[in-house]
Amino acid sequence: MSKVYVVGIGPGAYEDMTIRAVKTLEKCDIIVGYQTYVNLVKEHFQGKEFFTTPMKKEAERCLLALEHSLRGKRVAMISSGDAGIYGMAGLMYEVAEKMLREGKAGERLLTDEEKDILKGLDIQVIPGITAASSGAAILGAPLIHDFAIISLSDLMTPWKKIEARLECAAKADLGIVLYNPSSHKRADYLQKACDILLQTLPPDRICGIVENIGREGEKSRILTLSELRNTQVNMFTTVFVGNQQTKVLRQHMVTPRGYREVKDSL
Amino acid sequence: MSKVYVVGIGPGAYEDMTIRAVKTLEKCDIIVGYQTYVNLVKEHFQGKEFFTTPMKKEAERCLLALEHSLRGKRVAMISSGDAGIYGMAGLMYEVAEKMLREGKAGERLLTDEEKDILKGLDIQVIPGITAASSGAAILGAPLIHDFAIISLSDLMTPWKKIEARLECAAKADLGIVLYNPSSHKRADYLQKACDILLQTLPPDRICGIVENIGREGEKSRILTLSELRNTQVNMFTTVFVGNQQTKVLRQHMVTPRGYREVKDSL
Repeated sequence: MSKVYVVGIGPGAYEDMTIRAVKTLEKCDIIVGYQTYVNLVKEHFQGKEFFTTPMKKEAERCLLALEHSLRGKRVAMISSGDAGIYGMAGLMYEVAEKMLREGKAGERLLTDEEKDILKGLDIQVIPGITAASSGAAILGAPLIHDFAIISLSDLMTPWKKIEARLECAAKADLGIVLYNPSSHKRADYLQKACDILLQTLPPDRICGIVENIGREGEKSRILTLSELRNTQVNMFTTVFVGNQQTKVLRQHMVTPRGYREVKDSL
Repeated sequence: MSKVYVVGIGPGAYEDMTIRAVKTLEKCDIIVGYQTYVNLVKEHFQGKEFFTTPMKKEAERCLLALEHSLRGKRVAMISSGDAGIYGMAGLMYEVAEKMLREGKAGERLLTDEEKDILKGLDIQVIPGITAASSGAAILGAPLIHDFAIISLSDLMTPWKKIEARLECAAKADLGIVLYNPSSHKRADYLQKACDILLQTLPPDRICGIVENIGREGEKSRILTLSELRNTQVNMFTTVFVGNQQTKVLRQHMVTPRGYREVKDSL
């Protein structure tokens, strides 16, 4: 059976890839990805063919990967963090399904042989370390208890829906991780999100931010929710909001593992 | 500066560890963990000293690791999945802080030298692949959009709090991952959780379960929420509940990356 791989490469450093991800890329002929991520892995996988497409051309990227798979090439699509968390894994399924349904690859008609290959094609997802995990490790241990991951990007999600999720997570005392907290066009989104959280959470709620996780220029900061509201972050930042039990211990952000102590505990 | 490591080993297979996790364990003298997880890694790290403590003796396990660190040993505590997601990272901070505050290791008084070492001790968390990521990769791509991870264990969390989180996540249309969905004493907890979700979500909401992720006996199934309600799972199972957009594509559970299509999209 033919396979196409969707591989999470983690936050960026080679060492943060899993052994399975490395071995998968090593056995492929072609590595497809967004330019920035291809640049991160390129030097470690020599002799491969690399293909890139720009941001917002993710469906084309999947099409490219699938077209090469149909030609018998071993292809891996890379995704930063975990391919399955805001990553390319889902779109690969959707594009493959659409190709088969329409019998076309873009404008080109598929041959019967290609349709058969595509029908049997196994999309294998290789998970990677998502920013919630890698950022948490830098801050200390903010995600030891229940939490939600919410993206502030409203490119494909109505802002009202994002607002409702923030409200809800705050009311349920979930830890919160914010992905895509800012961009050039959305410079005030983190501030808007904090204002929603502040309707439920106290201004001194412990929060943390991590920028450029596992890459050059990595930095982190622990701060209160009201300080976070007045902090400008960039698109390479991941934001953590603690639950009601989260505290600062040894200059790190730590969430206890529950609300009751068990016998052996502290 | 002295260091103690808390290392997430991922779902269980050696290949699912990150290179950083492997290198960290390789350079340590002592590996501490729960018996089951020590058994998973033991053969790959020969010549190390291994220490284990039983389940529910997690604070003792941290104490053990810290005591060996104070004696100048290079120590790694291992945690399955990600050490920072329901893992040992938080407790390591808490136990170290308590030791320093009380000036004691268990009943034994710390020397001034030990207090100095402990004060400067760097707790380094090495993230691993959590079950949300590894389970999602097996099911397809269920977590491409916002989601919450909620543990059904009420050992240290009031059940009312868990209920409120389930309700909230369902109302906000978050994908949901349930950790610890069942145990001998809590055989009906998944059923109770599904009943709460069914107050908000339709019975045909797409769900998935994965058992023994990355280990012998791995199996998965895609089913509806009402089928899930009537399914008995064990403590080695991770449960996924889709959002309103989640669908079955190519026999896999796939959540689209948003609620609107962008230009290049499908």
